[in-house]
Amino acid sequence: MRITVLAGGVGAARFLRGLKRAAPGAELTVIGNTGDDITLFGLRVCPDLDTVMYTLGGGIDEQQGWGRADETFSTRAELAAYGASPDWFTLGDRDVATHILRSQLLAAGQPLSAVTERLCRRWRPGVRLLPMSDDPVETHVVLHEDGGRRTVHFQEWWVRLHAATPAAAIIAVGAAEAVPAPGVLEAIDDVILFPPSNPVVSIGTILAVPGIRAAVAGKTVVGVSPIIGGAPVRGMADACLTAIGVATSAAAVGAHYGPELIDGWLVDDQDKAAADEPALAGIEVRALPLLMRDLPATTAIARAALDLALDLAAGSLGQA
Amino acid sequence: MRITVLAGGVGAARFLRGLKRAAPGAELTVIGNTGDDITLFGLRVCPDLDTVMYTLGGGIDEQQGWGRADETFSTRAELAAYGASPDWFTLGDRDVATHILRSQLLAAGQPLSAVTERLCRRWRPGVRLLPMSDDPVETHVVLHEDGGRRTVHFQEWWVRLHAATPAAAIIAVGAAEAVPAPGVLEAIDDVILFPPSNPVVSIGTILAVPGIRAAVAGKTVVGVSPIIGGAPVRGMADACLTAIGVATSAAAVGAHYGPELIDGWLVDDQDKAAADEPALAGIEVRALPLLMRDLPATTAIARAALDLALDLAAGSLGQA
Repeated sequence: MRITVLAGGVGAARFLRGLKRAAPGAELTVIGNTGDDITLFGLRVCPDLDTVMYTLGGGIDEQQGWGRADETFSTRAELAAYGASPDWFTLGDRDVATHILRSQLLAAGQPLSAVTERLCRRWRPGVRLLPMSDDPVETHVVLHEDGGRRTVHFQEWWVRLHAATPAAAIIAVGAAEAVPAPGVLEAIDDVILFPPSNPVVSIGTILAVPGIRAAVAGKTVVGVSPIIGGAPVRGMADACLTAIGVATSAAAVGAHYGPELIDGWLVDDQDKAAADEPALAGIEVRALPLLMRDLPATTAIARAALDLALDLAAGSLGQA
Repeated sequence: MRITVLAGGVGAARFLRGLKRAAPGAELTVIGNTGDDITLFGLRVCPDLDTVMYTLGGGIDEQQGWGRADETFSTRAELAAYGASPDWFTLGDRDVATHILRSQLLAAGQPLSAVTERLCRRWRPGVRLLPMSDDPVETHVVLHEDGGRRTVHFQEWWVRLHAATPAAAIIAVGAAEAVPAPGVLEAIDDVILFPPSNPVVSIGTILAVPGIRAAVAGKTVVGVSPIIGGAPVRGMADACLTAIGVATSAAAVGAHYGPELIDGWLVDDQDKAAADEPALAGIEVRALPLLMRDLPATTAIARAALDLALDLAAGSLGQA
């Protein structure tokens, strides 16, 4: 069986760890968001791809969910001593090696998909990790400040401003002109899962690459709500949802994807009322504990997503 | 008084530390060799400039004479884990920040001289540190191996092969087309000192940049022999001298520079017979202990070089 997952960072990476357990024999492809990518000190940083790669490859800082385990920060301290900016992005000494090698290979003309494959030869994540596109796409955020408009890179809004300044708009710069990376459209087959990633700046950005949304819409798609009880489990998805006029609720996010895109929607037990939402008509909603508190819990969630997808694909629900 | 020093790496940096003590009021300019520069993992590394900068700025690893104090090597270990090459060049986590920032500024279009000035704003080396040229010059070494010829970067010969494979030729690639960096020719004034740097791949490479040799030759120049008792004090200068057909002796190196270039030549006490060498006719030779074993000893050597230069400049020797 072929399972393809549209992935952001930490939430997706953890979900994938459960999915590998839930579907040990499946061929897993991960289409990673690259809208968070940023060039820092001339180095190309791909936070979401790296989080997936490090998590599945056993190199992640388990506590914080991103970055490398046993990390040190000499390089960062030195850059700060030089007064180099920005100073708000954490670059660890282990992590920076990934960015150095990636930047070297990109500068040599290799596309990001080939570079990612090269990096994964070390990490052996057990999935095929593809960037959504080899073309640069960067999510920018428009802020209203002091009566004026200012546009910042998503990372500056997220990491430096902690998404505390409301976003007037979130723009995936370059997405409209981007082409899916080699293998992306071919991988959209059988079953598609949306892990509990940010619906706006992670999954939304992947879907903004021309061709991906249409391909996904034609398949069996099951999503896992990143919102539990009216709040994001992790991160500041609420700030992103507010920016696009979507309420921070499991039902609203499911409706935002809509029945033309997703077929099934997993919500937490406390959000089970979503099943009766008119806006979710046409979407099969199932409720279960959605907190990925450990690997067994996460595996159960992934198993439930997969089961729902298989039920939907088999048409058993329609026949019931 | 204006003193300008043509500098390689470790030997020059230590000599300069003594010179700063010996001539506290002088305006010191250092013209640094960039022929050792190499691009590793896409990062531009300038070993000689950095050794001078770190040594005079208080950041050097005193024990080994190059690299940063209290260094760690996570980035290097990670690059090795990726199987990235080369694996024979040491990149420390502190040191790599310098290369990252330099590479970023170079990629943004800044010339190496401006980048070096920017880096020195942090280190405050107490000298004006100029690269010999903003144009890339790379010393390559031609090796005869297994009956064939192979050309490697100087660093590969020096660091990886420990200069154990004899060099058939040493070529400063790009030197003939290079232009002295802004300020270099203007700084060649009053007194010029050659520290005990490698006469071939350090001082020789600087002199190979068109315009520098002629400018230096017209000034009062005093050199300090890097050879004591028939052997280099440090490094493998003998391998370089052999490659250009010069004997490894204080007299031979003095004669290699020649009276048309240098006016004074400091040799170690054990090489004092050099003063009677016909090949050194026209060069004022003085013998003294030349081992830079500590700062007082180094200061005495720098003081002697300066005294000789001042005597020569004042014409007092000619009048005697």
